[in-house]
Amino acid sequence: MSGTIAFVGLGAMGLPMAKRLVANGNTVRGFDLNPKALASLKQAGGVASESAAAAAEGAGTLLLMVVNASQARAVLFEGKALAALAPKATVVLMATCAPAEALAIGEEVAASGRSFVDSPVSGGVVGAESGTLTIMAAAPKSTFAAIEPLLKQVGDKLFHVGERWGQGAAVKTINQLLCGVHIAAAAEAFTLGEKAGLDGKLLLQILGNSAAASWMLNNRGPRMLQSDPQSTSAVDIFVKDLGIVAEAGKASRMGLPLAAAALQMFLAASGAGHGKADDSQVIRAYRALNGLA
Amino acid sequence: MSGTIAFVGLGAMGLPMAKRLVANGNTVRGFDLNPKALASLKQAGGVASESAAAAAEGAGTLLLMVVNASQARAVLFEGKALAALAPKATVVLMATCAPAEALAIGEEVAASGRSFVDSPVSGGVVGAESGTLTIMAAAPKSTFAAIEPLLKQVGDKLFHVGERWGQGAAVKTINQLLCGVHIAAAAEAFTLGEKAGLDGKLLLQILGNSAAASWMLNNRGPRMLQSDPQSTSAVDIFVKDLGIVAEAGKASRMGLPLAAAALQMFLAASGAGHGKADDSQVIRAYRALNGLA
Repeated sequence: MSGTIAFVGLGAMGLPMAKRLVANGNTVRGFDLNPKALASLKQAGGVASESAAAAAEGAGTLLLMVVNASQARAVLFEGKALAALAPKATVVLMATCAPAEALAIGEEVAASGRSFVDSPVSGGVVGAESGTLTIMAAAPKSTFAAIEPLLKQVGDKLFHVGERWGQGAAVKTINQLLCGVHIAAAAEAFTLGEKAGLDGKLLLQILGNSAAASWMLNNRGPRMLQSDPQSTSAVDIFVKDLGIVAEAGKASRMGLPLAAAALQMFLAASGAGHGKADDSQVIRAYRALNGLA
Repeated sequence: MSGTIAFVGLGAMGLPMAKRLVANGNTVRGFDLNPKALASLKQAGGVASESAAAAAEGAGTLLLMVVNASQARAVLFEGKALAALAPKATVVLMATCAPAEALAIGEEVAASGRSFVDSPVSGGVVGAESGTLTIMAAAPKSTFAAIEPLLKQVGDKLFHVGERWGQGAAVKTINQLLCGVHIAAAAEAFTLGEKAGLDGKLLLQILGNSAAASWMLNNRGPRMLQSDPQSTSAVDIFVKDLGIVAEAGKASRMGLPLAAAALQMFLAASGAGHGKADDSQVIRAYRALNGLA
């Protein structure tokens, strides 16, 4: 029974992660508000639970792949999943949270006698489906060592980034800072190119193979040149994630001028009605700003 | 005689470029204020001229690899190199200039009956020495076609980016916008990591292989973690180049919020006495800003 894994949050990333654990022979009890996701997990050989607390009942591990810290709190505390777990269970928080929130949740979990791993992931849906996520785990050494075999089943790039809760969230926050700034910088660059009458595709070819390149420039650049590309990750995701960067900066009393400027552009894009558009479309805010819309 | 190439500006990049042209069998007459550079060109088989005008006398091509537009003007107009050229000569401006300056110089050169190519380069000293520079040339089609064989001798990535002077400078400006913002973003990211007590090398390992990566993160990141690294390109180069970005934005009446924020950090680093330090040391401005100095 203590080998049972409770998995809460069966979204675009959580569902394939949970299925992978099932496929590896683990007993997985899942919960999500979406009945379709639950049915899909059941079909794959998992258990569809009626609530987070039911999934957690007596389980030795609880994986939280929810959207944010507030959902994690709702599951653990209001939803009583924490109290339902085995007395020596481990809670693994994989949602993207501000470092201070991951630390606070860790302290509350520890107060109940359970272990806690602050363990955000990156790599998106593709990484979740292929088991190639990057996992940035912060926990005391012994806790990390105990959970390592399980984490390696969902991600092939596992890092123990520190012993203090919040440090995993900090790495993810820094990751998102760079991703968000690089997308906005690419949009700023293309907008300057449009104003100069340059061919966007040629510009991308020159810049994408130079010292000016970024992973985001090469990945989002082609979609920036399309007027209505398919959405792989929305503008509003960066409103959220650069919001977490801003929150982390505020909590640490730090000035983060580039992240702050990039956030304004994603906010402006969202405010103009493009929140659900692909995040490359932050370029629409730049075009509006500069009379190119 | 009209096959003679005048080459003005024999600095860290200009000298190896001029030597390469000599090695390829061209007649090259060089000029620089630095007598050592002149002597080095002469030793390689070039001609050491006494002035820019002497180098240009009757030549069919003038390559300008000077520091900025103001030096280019000094050579061409005050120094009378333009008037000394063959009547149908071509002037190739390879310095990093603001687009409006490249356009203005092009118009003055054209008024004298000569052809003009706005043709900045990127790839640094390494690219200049190995003949692997990226060249972003703007000129009317026929002018470009005529100069193409010569440009291919100094760069293996030659792009005809547009027919209007200033468009080459615009591509280079956009390139520098991304380079400068990416360096500053990496410094912002590492500073947040330091505040969170994270190991910088581990952070670089995680981020450098993720969607958060940039060419600059992987190239400058390791030097950002050193307290006094060897300088490959100075903080003040980005004070200049992001200054050109700001000038281009002003001339086009454009808001470029990320470039503007990055420039402030390079300016602050320079103001704190780090102008000659490696550009990775813009991180010192971030540390000072955030109480980590």
